[in-house]
Amino acid sequence: MTYLFLRAAQKMNGVNAHCEDVLGFSHAEGQHFLNEAFKIIFEEAVRKGIDKNEKVCVWQDPAQLEKLLDLDLRDCGETHDQLLSRVRDVAKYSVKTNHPRFFNQLYSGVDYHALVGRLLTETLNTSQYTYEVAPVFVLMERVVLTKLRSMVGWSSGDGVFCPGGSMSNMFAMNLSRYHTFPQVKQQGLWSLPRLAVFTSQESHYSVMKGAAFLGIGTDHVYSVKTNQQGSMDADDLEGKIMLARSQGAVPLYVNATAGTTVRGAFDPLDRIADICEKHGLWMHVDAAWGGSVLFSEKHRHLVKGIDRANSVTWNPHKMLTTGLQCSAFLVRDTTNLLQRCHSANATYLFQQDKFYDMSLDTGDKTVQCGRKVDCLKLWLMWKAIGTKGLAERIDRAFAMARYFAEEMEKREGFQLLYEPQFVNTCFWYIPPSLRGKENTTDYKDRLSKVAPAIKERMMKQGTIMVGYQPLNGEINFFRMVVVSPHISLRDMDFCLDEIERLGKDL
Amino acid sequence: MTYLFLRAAQKMNGVNAHCEDVLGFSHAEGQHFLNEAFKIIFEEAVRKGIDKNEKVCVWQDPAQLEKLLDLDLRDCGETHDQLLSRVRDVAKYSVKTNHPRFFNQLYSGVDYHALVGRLLTETLNTSQYTYEVAPVFVLMERVVLTKLRSMVGWSSGDGVFCPGGSMSNMFAMNLSRYHTFPQVKQQGLWSLPRLAVFTSQESHYSVMKGAAFLGIGTDHVYSVKTNQQGSMDADDLEGKIMLARSQGAVPLYVNATAGTTVRGAFDPLDRIADICEKHGLWMHVDAAWGGSVLFSEKHRHLVKGIDRANSVTWNPHKMLTTGLQCSAFLVRDTTNLLQRCHSANATYLFQQDKFYDMSLDTGDKTVQCGRKVDCLKLWLMWKAIGTKGLAERIDRAFAMARYFAEEMEKREGFQLLYEPQFVNTCFWYIPPSLRGKENTTDYKDRLSKVAPAIKERMMKQGTIMVGYQPLNGEINFFRMVVVSPHISLRDMDFCLDEIERLGKDL
Repeated sequence: MTYLFLRAAQKMNGVNAHCEDVLGFSHAEGQHFLNEAFKIIFEEAVRKGIDKNEKVCVWQDPAQLEKLLDLDLRDCGETHDQLLSRVRDVAKYSVKTNHPRFFNQLYSGVDYHALVGRLLTETLNTSQYTYEVAPVFVLMERVVLTKLRSMVGWSSGDGVFCPGGSMSNMFAMNLSRYHTFPQVKQQGLWSLPRLAVFTSQESHYSVMKGAAFLGIGTDHVYSVKTNQQGSMDADDLEGKIMLARSQGAVPLYVNATAGTTVRGAFDPLDRIADICEKHGLWMHVDAAWGGSVLFSEKHRHLVKGIDRANSVTWNPHKMLTTGLQCSAFLVRDTTNLLQRCHSANATYLFQQDKFYDMSLDTGDKTVQCGRKVDCLKLWLMWKAIGTKGLAERIDRAFAMARYFAEEMEKREGFQLLYEPQFVNTCFWYIPPSLRGKENTTDYKDRLSKVAPAIKERMMKQGTIMVGYQPLNGEINFFRMVVVSPHISLRDMDFCLDEIERLGKDL
Repeated sequence: MTYLFLRAAQKMNGVNAHCEDVLGFSHAEGQHFLNEAFKIIFEEAVRKGIDKNEKVCVWQDPAQLEKLLDLDLRDCGETHDQLLSRVRDVAKYSVKTNHPRFFNQLYSGVDYHALVGRLLTETLNTSQYTYEVAPVFVLMERVVLTKLRSMVGWSSGDGVFCPGGSMSNMFAMNLSRYHTFPQVKQQGLWSLPRLAVFTSQESHYSVMKGAAFLGIGTDHVYSVKTNQQGSMDADDLEGKIMLARSQGAVPLYVNATAGTTVRGAFDPLDRIADICEKHGLWMHVDAAWGGSVLFSEKHRHLVKGIDRANSVTWNPHKMLTTGLQCSAFLVRDTTNLLQRCHSANATYLFQQDKFYDMSLDTGDKTVQCGRKVDCLKLWLMWKAIGTKGLAERIDRAFAMARYFAEEMEKREGFQLLYEPQFVNTCFWYIPPSLRGKENTTDYKDRLSKVAPAIKERMMKQGTIMVGYQPLNGEINFFRMVVVSPHISLRDMDFCLDEIERLGKDL
């Protein structure tokens, strides 16, 4: 019956049941479209995407952009020509994060080898849970994680790639909880004493999100003071641990940060490790941003003591420019804690009578089921330029950031907030109208409006993108971030010139 | 000083400070590599990846594969020719999930428009958190989610794309908890009574993982019985709610499944909605697998009542072949619950003095920070074939699965476990040596070894990939899943022929 229905349906669609031409698209047509579309992607998103003569963004008002893009989804499909112009439009109106004038986030620039890794990953479209469906990637992930761990200083351990650093940080918090109180997996938090976790006031907001999501609650996150550079005050950490105890909570977990999001500050890891050892706490290092300094002989002192941590988050999609997403969660444990903590032993996926070594089915180490392949882009890039090439890039980014700060000090109107530790440079641009007015009552109010006003102009003119924010009582300031290996000194100069040009009349 | 260092470093590397040629790779070289690599990706992963004359997988023993791939990461980089052969090798030894003989997971096949969407997403490499860096995708995600919600039957609501269905299901559980007990975000679970969540014994294991991760604990997941088809027994659900109450727990959340992972069963949503309303529980529908039946006039009755849910998980990366990952988490709520539950209001990202409508910065609706763009691949595919085209694909997959089951019944040695409801077909292959031996004492023991043995042979010969598993006391059986729009009746016949060929001597 249904067989006849199918034959009839196929006939209606003008389709031969024994050929590939179904529902209007043959493989041949599809492949032709793919090749045509790739040419457009290459031209619009790659070639123009890095061209200084093109804008970093083409600002459109949301209502206008919605109209331009004709986003509505309809009953009937479109021709390939229409679709190709949609590909062109999406590229045209998207922000060019590969562009040498994009400094807005902790990721920027393009590495062509990593990009090839991403395109191949998307084309192969498999899930990183079993050796059966991802043989190459199971082995590759193991090698990449082992290499990253060895750079942290661990000759053994475990790990998994996560969908972003926030998830990696949550994994750490969950793991620490399970490690200390294994009954939590079955019995929940009701069977545990009230827990306390510790993180600096400049750490990433994912610690708060994680505490809420994991049922611990943000009230149980103790905010540790930072010093003038933005690094955790270790004495205050110890004070907060005592405070938590005095309030009847059980200190569990310290999140130390290697490279804070805004200021790029590094917490004193050795000191924190001492405190964690003394009090028996899990030490996690959120090195999502700063972990890549491990490549640099010159700068890796910033994370001295990281090898004493129990777990580390490290996002190569930031400073190593692998492309989103690539977040490694690394664990020092060698007792299969990660799998014991997260596993559910689904019999349809992790059958125990497979014909190969089932320890290769690593999917139960995560709380995800299907999981994207995140190792190939990093692996291919690493193969392309080697550990030394990656190290040079890190050193170069530091030198670029230093140059930027030094040049700034030569110019009137630029004021550094702090001597930068890392590749984040935080500064105010003070327009001529405000210079020498530091003591007037409305100075701070007026200065706080400068960065947003310049930001609006840079976006609307599409010449450059740099982020701004307030922090710890400091009014709005710019945060310049240097990542991309293709950035030149000229780009640094341009950035200063452009902020001056955009803001001098404010 | 550092400026001089930089000049020196650049000179040492033979690099001009004012050009793009840094660290050995110019844009020109990189772009040339990208184009060469794309040709290889096209040939090896696309063209050969769907060719029936090529293997679906090239099985290698892990130790052998590791050697073949030369995975080690070294100090020095490689030439472009070496890297191109690495691209070729990764493609060669990877499983071809686009292949018409790949039936191993709930995803399979290739949609070329979706693939183009993925390649463009990777090239643009941005994060889906603010309008500032993802203007096109913020608007596009809103349109796509609105459209998916309208298919569920909601004219308003909220939603976000998540890194996989497990995360979407966790979001639902967290949202229900916050909805009923908003103090949990700050105070944690210690401030709440013991909670109880309910899910069928055939539901996805992410409910258990979620309960553990969220601190609720797997003991507080009440497993509800299923009927002969694998659908939740609504009477037992009500019984379990009473049981939980009698044990001092507060019933919170029911996870109903639309399309179970193994059997493809649909829970009775209307009945479950009645029970949830009566008892004041949050109703979530895990329609990760089955949600796509909403496209089909003929089959959408399977999810009748889904509009009465509070939240829905729906993964277009499964039946709609958008490619991994594409998991929509949809919410009926119109009070900004999603953002209130998950937000942390980071000032460096979600500044409140931006020059555009800041409600477009949707990044705080999720527990992630950086988030991959998952909407473009679905949007472009939808534009390409329209709602009608997608509907035809769903109907066709059902018809293919029916054909497969009907053909099986004509053949000796194939035995259906149940009449399929969906596009999963569960069956045993019984080799001649076991036919008529149903009453012998070792029959089950021997039959349970047949599927793993055939599986090993199919993988080693690379002719086909179909999954197997035990379930609810039933010994190992095959689960055939039809998804890809390019599958033909001949592929269905081939699958049966091949299992017979591989297993007849067992």
